[in-house]
Amino acid sequence: MYKIKLHLRYADTDQMGVIYHPNYLTFYELGRTGLLNEVGYDYLEFEKQGTIFPVREVSSTYLKSIRLGETCYVYTKLLKVSRVKLTFYHEVRNEEGDLKSTGQTSIVSVNAKTFLPMRMPEEMTVEFEKYKDGV
Amino acid sequence: MYKIKLHLRYADTDQMGVIYHPNYLTFYELGRTGLLNEVGYDYLEFEKQGTIFPVREVSSTYLKSIRLGETCYVYTKLLKVSRVKLTFYHEVRNEEGDLKSTGQTSIVSVNAKTFLPMRMPEEMTVEFEKYKDGV
Amino acid sequence: MYKIKLHLRYADTDQMGVIYHPNYLTFYELGRTGLLNEVGYDYLEFEKQGTIFPVREVSSTYLKSIRLGETCYVYTKLLKVSRVKLTFYHEVRNEEGDLKSTGQTSIVSVNAKTFLPMRMPEEMTVEFEKYKDGV
Amino acid sequence: MYKIKLHLRYADTDQMGVIYHPNYLTFYELGRTGLLNEVGYDYLEFEKQGTIFPVREVSSTYLKSIRLGETCYVYTKLLKVSRVKLTFYHEVRNEEGDLKSTGQTSIVSVNAKTFLPMRMPEEMTVEFEKYKDGV
Repeated sequence: MYKIKLHLRYADTDQMGVIYHPNYLTFYELGRTGLLNEVGYDYLEFEKQGTIFPVREVSSTYLKSIRLGETCYVYTKLLKVSRVKLTFYHEVRNEEGDLKSTGQTSIVSVNAKTFLPMRMPEEMTVEFEKYKDGV
Repeated sequence: MYKIKLHLRYADTDQMGVIYHPNYLTFYELGRTGLLNEVGYDYLEFEKQGTIFPVREVSSTYLKSIRLGETCYVYTKLLKVSRVKLTFYHEVRNEEGDLKSTGQTSIVSVNAKTFLPMRMPEEMTVEFEKYKDGV
Repeated sequence: MYKIKLHLRYADTDQMGVIYHPNYLTFYELGRTGLLNEVGYDYLEFEKQGTIFPVREVSSTYLKSIRLGETCYVYTKLLKVSRVKLTFYHEVRNEEGDLKSTGQTSIVSVNAKTFLPMRMPEEMTVEFEKYKDGV
Repeated sequence: MYKIKLHLRYADTDQMGVIYHPNYLTFYELGRTGLLNEVGYDYLEFEKQGTIFPVREVSSTYLKSIRLGETCYVYTKLLKVSRVKLTFYHEVRNEEGDLKSTGQTSIVSVNAKTFLPMRMPEEMTVEFEKYKDGV
């Protein structure tokens, strides 16, 4: 799976003394934009050209809390590819490999002004298919 | 369902020009802590006494984006009650009733220091049962 | 001074168990956009028409920490008005009147696309002058 | 000055299309905790032992907006050292050296439970003195 290191911030903590749960969605996002870049698709370049990829569905299971100071990684792979939707699977693990959370995100391709669905170019989804289940 | 008004902030937006998707989890949290208060259980009081309720599972489906300036509400109800876990269902709707998102969250009762599971008092779960599917 | 109630969130806390300090800038922003609305100028309407008001300078002095569950208010007044810059003074206080923080923010009027300075209409600044040192 | 690379997130942006201004305070914090670590003082270790360092004063001047995708750095140095307060100066610059913002932060040494001032050990402030105006 595609792996990135997390750069945790004091801002990510809450008064339970651990990383605040909605921030994991931000971590998953870092994983999937990183993976898209790896495949050759720059998310920000798409935005400039009028296509954005809002999240349609997200789920997350929290197994162990993360404390500031722990070194953690997000692992991401592509699960499903269609002309309008990409589905990713994510794991957060620390240096020792302990599983902190698992998650799944679907993003859809829409027009930046109208937010109406826009099909992705076929060569793009063909490219993504190659990266399914392992980058 | 238990209803609260959202007080959106500029900070909640992202460069797509809409409310950033992980913030919906914060909105769901406002809904469920509000509901717990309504039933007579003050989340913060529990924390002081050493019991916290971290999120175990969360899911969210985003149907329509929210723009700053829109008046929105979170509707929450209790779906499932056990001695260690509470499951909530949430909806975000605007003034006109348009459904913006649906979500589900499970929180578990744990010891604030050890993060080990702690059963909730029976009278508490009995109380919660009454509030299932409608407050 | 123009007063708004703060709607604190669990997300606003950090692992010190208090409201995380950069969030006060978000609170000051709620104060000044509220005050502008009161005077009759809708910040979001300006954005749609191509004028934005990024922050040029900000300062904050933290006197007492804020705990989740406290009822707090932001008080804001206009300190200085020019054709390109507005300067605000802020205070955060709780229900008992305890001063939590003081702050000052300057925002400048710029073109949303180029980020180059844009003079505000004269009638607007004349209007603001009336609201200086007390709304 | 002590230099760290920023790892910007989509979450850091706002609907102006740039990095949201309160987040710079989070960046300054990354700079100063990094510098303290460099000197040999682990912020998180202090917290565990009951001493925390809340921010007392902060100021920031925003010169140029930051867009997601830009590579930016925080530069930090110690300006003033006393037994209860440390004052830092910060700059954010991009790869080309363009100055994005300047800032100053004072943190105070307090007891984690009471939030009352606690003098830092003398050997610690002596150590800090060496790092003033350049690490």
